[in-house]
Amino acid sequence: MKITDIRERSFPLDSPLRNAYIDFSQMTCSVVAVETDVLRDGKPVTGYGFNSNGRYGAGGLLRERFLPRLQAATPNDLLDESGSNLDPFKIHTCMMSNEKPGGHGERSVAVGVVDMAVWDAVAKIEERPLNRLLADRFGGDVPADERVYVYAAGGYYYPGKGLEALQDEMRGYLDLGYRDVKMKIGGASLTEDLARIEAVLDVVGKGEHLMVDANGRFDLQTAVAYAEALAPYGLKWYEEAGDPLDYDLQAALAKHYGLPMATGENLFSLQDARNLIRHGGMRPDRDWLQFDCALSYGLVEYLKILAMLRDEGWSSRRVVPHGGHQMSLNIAAGLHLGGNESYPRVFQPYGGFADDVEVVDGFVGLPDCSGIGMERKAKLYELLQTV
Amino acid sequence: MKITDIRERSFPLDSPLRNAYIDFSQMTCSVVAVETDVLRDGKPVTGYGFNSNGRYGAGGLLRERFLPRLQAATPNDLLDESGSNLDPFKIHTCMMSNEKPGGHGERSVAVGVVDMAVWDAVAKIEERPLNRLLADRFGGDVPADERVYVYAAGGYYYPGKGLEALQDEMRGYLDLGYRDVKMKIGGASLTEDLARIEAVLDVVGKGEHLMVDANGRFDLQTAVAYAEALAPYGLKWYEEAGDPLDYDLQAALAKHYGLPMATGENLFSLQDARNLIRHGGMRPDRDWLQFDCALSYGLVEYLKILAMLRDEGWSSRRVVPHGGHQMSLNIAAGLHLGGNESYPRVFQPYGGFADDVEVVDGFVGLPDCSGIGMERKAKLYELLQTV
Repeated sequence: MKITDIRERSFPLDSPLRNAYIDFSQMTCSVVAVETDVLRDGKPVTGYGFNSNGRYGAGGLLRERFLPRLQAATPNDLLDESGSNLDPFKIHTCMMSNEKPGGHGERSVAVGVVDMAVWDAVAKIEERPLNRLLADRFGGDVPADERVYVYAAGGYYYPGKGLEALQDEMRGYLDLGYRDVKMKIGGASLTEDLARIEAVLDVVGKGEHLMVDANGRFDLQTAVAYAEALAPYGLKWYEEAGDPLDYDLQAALAKHYGLPMATGENLFSLQDARNLIRHGGMRPDRDWLQFDCALSYGLVEYLKILAMLRDEGWSSRRVVPHGGHQMSLNIAAGLHLGGNESYPRVFQPYGGFADDVEVVDGFVGLPDCSGIGMERKAKLYELLQTV
Repeated sequence: MKITDIRERSFPLDSPLRNAYIDFSQMTCSVVAVETDVLRDGKPVTGYGFNSNGRYGAGGLLRERFLPRLQAATPNDLLDESGSNLDPFKIHTCMMSNEKPGGHGERSVAVGVVDMAVWDAVAKIEERPLNRLLADRFGGDVPADERVYVYAAGGYYYPGKGLEALQDEMRGYLDLGYRDVKMKIGGASLTEDLARIEAVLDVVGKGEHLMVDANGRFDLQTAVAYAEALAPYGLKWYEEAGDPLDYDLQAALAKHYGLPMATGENLFSLQDARNLIRHGGMRPDRDWLQFDCALSYGLVEYLKILAMLRDEGWSSRRVVPHGGHQMSLNIAAGLHLGGNESYPRVFQPYGGFADDVEVVDGFVGLPDCSGIGMERKAKLYELLQTV
């Protein structure tokens, strides 16, 4: 077998949202299609990958460096020992040749998107759902989880959005079957944010059903002021208070906030994730880690991160990836993570799960189809086919 | 005044070198020209920037994100208060709009290249050498240094290169006026590297005239084995033993090696540099820091790094930037750093200094011309004019 073609295309994300840091209206998303000469159901198998929201598409890097390396490789060098399927590890090594250590941004997206497409193809060639393939290969004799905890991430700021609209949004998530919801903070004053939080608590009932996300905006003083104001609500977690690389801030904040915190979506490598564990004062008994494979050199790197966490005494159940995509959903089920983010009505058609699986009591199942399951999300599949 | 045009072009670096990590033959370099409508000597002022060796050109990112943001800005929003010159800080803010925290790689190169071109234009509009402008604005009443310590970085591995060729190379640097030279290690066995080191010591005389650079290749065990073998030579420094983000390794290595070490060329942001200082066990009385503005969001970010170092008790004289370009040479002179790297015969025409300044006893002066001085390096200027 061989890869017959790799195509990439950038799409606008085209969303009116903003969080504490960025305006999504200018965001782009890279989509990659890896086509093989293996026939399944009479058609050549094609794997698809895309990057999560929050970082830009990586079209330039894909065209300048990463796809040419794969195109220049001897096809056999990208295959597993049997020669009948792709080897994501060899493909990763090929893409990372002539790349220096350090500087883990942007290229981590380019490699992550290709990695997603490769795993999709690998599972399709094996004619299995990716989550089951992952459980078999890396899940230590434990079958894939049949359902995965999900929460609805939303509560963005956008022009003219008042408290009622925020409540309506959250009510909509509950109606869809979610129990826990997440909202942005830090894009308004503390007073205004507390009013927003209380409005949402009126809808979801208890603090344990609400997370708040500052998107790395706060200095320590502001982070502590929020921590003190948030503590009485008993929230499910307080996310990314400070700069993602300011491990000292995270560790200092933990001294002021005994409740769960979460971070990691903006750490894009094993090295950066390890530094968070080493220096960030994160607590394995209550905190949450949110690394996102699609922004972080893909599942090949993610497996190294999970191994590092195990070595450092962390349960994989403390990992709940950022991104809200089906790739992380498969990883969560197959490698027994703690859940997965979800963006029920935003970042479409990339975000969200298969059309025919419902969220029930805050958990979602996975479709019984080969690969990641993108074909079971009609609007996404329609877009993928244009690549 | 206004920016009338910004052009970018990628050039192959086209070098047969390799270090412990990468093969330079596939490397590219981005060149940016920022053209203004300000006339000096009857011609519109154009500032030039390029990225240092070691990272790839950033053409895709420049075209997709950073140049469009500048083109979309109101021209006045990019000017200083007088309205008669560009404001590099405002330009930096404009380029970094809609960029999330974390993930400091690739985009840091794109922004760094534009920043270099902007400072070149700013100094040309003021009709002053950049180093003197920097000393006036940020040098705390201390004039720019008239000469800067430089060392010759070379000693790369390349096919068929034996000890004699290595010695000839180093002898050539001494003939050019350098006193200190740097060579690569870690691309061969320890035994072979020690033979290479001893061959070079035969040429340069004492260990204090030789640095060695492992390019981040070693795990702790290997780094310590090298440290123990290197100690008797009393080298000027032992550079980038482990992964640039493995601060624990650096701190642990310091317990095994009391002599000077150096690192930082692969840390591309204030946050990453600060983590090295916080967690890397670097010693302000003997170690060296090698952050390179051209790979790290430019001088605007570099000023923040220098301020952080001052706050943490480091002298600016402990900073000797990577890259071997005239931008860092101007920063070294104007902001009183400890010196600058130099690649006398490699990475041409980007590396190296003005044609008419000589290295004398390991120090180099700066040409008396406005801007960074690229026009005083004929082959570089010839290339820049094609952009």
